[in-house]
Amino acid sequence: MYIAIMAGGSGTRFWPASRQWRPKQFLNIIGDTPMVLATYQRIQALAPDERILLVVGEQHRAETERLFAHTAVNILAEPMGRNTAPCIGLAAKYVERLGGGGPLVILPADHFIADAEAFRDCLRRAAAVASRGGIVTLGIVPTRPETGYGYIERSAESEQENVFRVVKFVEKPDLQTAGRYLAAGNYFWNAGIFVATPQTLLEEFSLQMPAFYDGLESLRATFDQPHFSEQLKSLYEKTESISFDYAIMEKTTKPVYVVPANCGWSDVGSWFSLYEVRREQEQDGFGNIQEGNALLLNCKNSFVVARGKRLAAALGLNNILVVDTDDALLVADLAHSQEVKDVINRLMERGLTRIL
Amino acid sequence: MYIAIMAGGSGTRFWPASRQWRPKQFLNIIGDTPMVLATYQRIQALAPDERILLVVGEQHRAETERLFAHTAVNILAEPMGRNTAPCIGLAAKYVERLGGGGPLVILPADHFIADAEAFRDCLRRAAAVASRGGIVTLGIVPTRPETGYGYIERSAESEQENVFRVVKFVEKPDLQTAGRYLAAGNYFWNAGIFVATPQTLLEEFSLQMPAFYDGLESLRATFDQPHFSEQLKSLYEKTESISFDYAIMEKTTKPVYVVPANCGWSDVGSWFSLYEVRREQEQDGFGNIQEGNALLLNCKNSFVVARGKRLAAALGLNNILVVDTDDALLVADLAHSQEVKDVINRLMERGLTRIL
Repeated sequence: MYIAIMAGGSGTRFWPASRQWRPKQFLNIIGDTPMVLATYQRIQALAPDERILLVVGEQHRAETERLFAHTAVNILAEPMGRNTAPCIGLAAKYVERLGGGGPLVILPADHFIADAEAFRDCLRRAAAVASRGGIVTLGIVPTRPETGYGYIERSAESEQENVFRVVKFVEKPDLQTAGRYLAAGNYFWNAGIFVATPQTLLEEFSLQMPAFYDGLESLRATFDQPHFSEQLKSLYEKTESISFDYAIMEKTTKPVYVVPANCGWSDVGSWFSLYEVRREQEQDGFGNIQEGNALLLNCKNSFVVARGKRLAAALGLNNILVVDTDDALLVADLAHSQEVKDVINRLMERGLTRIL
Repeated sequence: MYIAIMAGGSGTRFWPASRQWRPKQFLNIIGDTPMVLATYQRIQALAPDERILLVVGEQHRAETERLFAHTAVNILAEPMGRNTAPCIGLAAKYVERLGGGGPLVILPADHFIADAEAFRDCLRRAAAVASRGGIVTLGIVPTRPETGYGYIERSAESEQENVFRVVKFVEKPDLQTAGRYLAAGNYFWNAGIFVATPQTLLEEFSLQMPAFYDGLESLRATFDQPHFSEQLKSLYEKTESISFDYAIMEKTTKPVYVVPANCGWSDVGSWFSLYEVRREQEQDGFGNIQEGNALLLNCKNSFVVARGKRLAAALGLNNILVVDTDDALLVADLAHSQEVKDVINRLMERGLTRIL
């Protein structure tokens, strides 16, 4: 089995803890470990380092090399973000070149999994199916009528134990539809975790993104050469930014399977989502999470992250998020924490890109 | 008329904006002016600088001299805090020595007055009464059933226009009693503002605090001499810490009057109280007050004071106080902001006196 960890995303959903130059996957927002390293540790039991590939943004190459200096993993840097399809195509090409005939697991670097063993079992099952030629997705068993994710509808009958055919991928639903999906029991969350052989993937790229596929083909011989970066950049500049779901999965003629995963998954997409994940492990009996140089008095259900040098005192708060860093402070209603993007926009308008 | 401004208090009710070394009266928490300077400006029209005395703590002498360098006011430093009775006795002695036969107005340095002209009118009326030998207090016309202040009960009949005899001083009431006082209409808040001639005051000190009075007498000749500070320190060390209300007003045999004052007074005793004062003047249409490098989005009735170098972003807050400084941050429910004393206590327990 080969594993590609996609760590190329950027984002400021965890501003001010995350910054443009330090996105979520490089932050230790859960425990002491940057998420990309935790993701690696989670799948380490499945493959030797030589079969693990990290795909990162060029701007994070040095930090990634530093973080993984004690390992023998492969690191590949994308010259710019082009969403997941080019990233997965590149990973498939790289792994094919390594000579891998076995299935390739593709997973994001910034998810949280409570039950790592259950997660690895799902990947093993998915890999077994994928080695026979289809594309397998992990389907997260939903626990609430979430409107923020795409869903996967499974077949009524299983192909084998805990493996189903995918009937269709559906876009983010409205709340009523999400409730129906939850009640129906045959819908899963699409976590963007895929398993297929490099050969299967590249066949699909040759059909659905032929120009990009040709570009990958011409890169093949240059992976270890000095002008590789330049060639990859030239290819990426010509390639549209598009998701793997949209470019490949919605159009593929290959058999597509889903393996249900009940492993305490979270995409940790907002401060509130992070709070929910950490509350399971760390809360103080009043629903509070605190980190760093913080002092909480009479607080409930609040989340105080003190990452600056300063003391952060919280008094009588309920459902409040406090994130303190040395050059920016955010105080928000926890339930509105996804609106941090509006703060970012406002800071951009003010030209305060220095603190983004 | 002589005026003594009592600026000796310490306190951390406005922590982290106020600190032990920088109490409220030296802060510009309303507008750009430190409260002690605003207090001086408010009464400047009543007396020339030579008849104005500031009584400050020794630790604030240098800062006071700097703040008032452009004036000719008198500055007297207390070696330690001993509450208001010794402070007023000292001020009376100092003014008597200046040769003042006229009435002496004594007022705290850290109150807010919305209508300065109405306030000065009250002081003029009080001074006229005091010059005939009694002690006059200002009685703040109550606007709510406040349980945090002492009250003054006035006589049914006025002595002259807007001057009443005091029936009694009453301690902080419970809410029900405060409601009764408010409804009755013959109770005022005791703001600790007194007017009397130095002679009247010193007579009272000789009766009620004879040892302290004798000490003042022996200081009389030393006010301008090098060993004055040392002698004053020796006197203060022997003197109990006691309020003027308790030591003198409750026991005096002099006639005591009250002049009703309807001048938008606030003792600005907590962050919430400050918020209420400033909301009258500054709020943004959603009840928010912001100061410094702050960004508010979708906030209501919140108070964001950004006194540090950092940006403070507030998102979706309701009734929340944020006070950011370079070495400490406070986030609190505005209604619980008086509990900042609990934070102070906790910091003391932790030995974090450096940030107090």
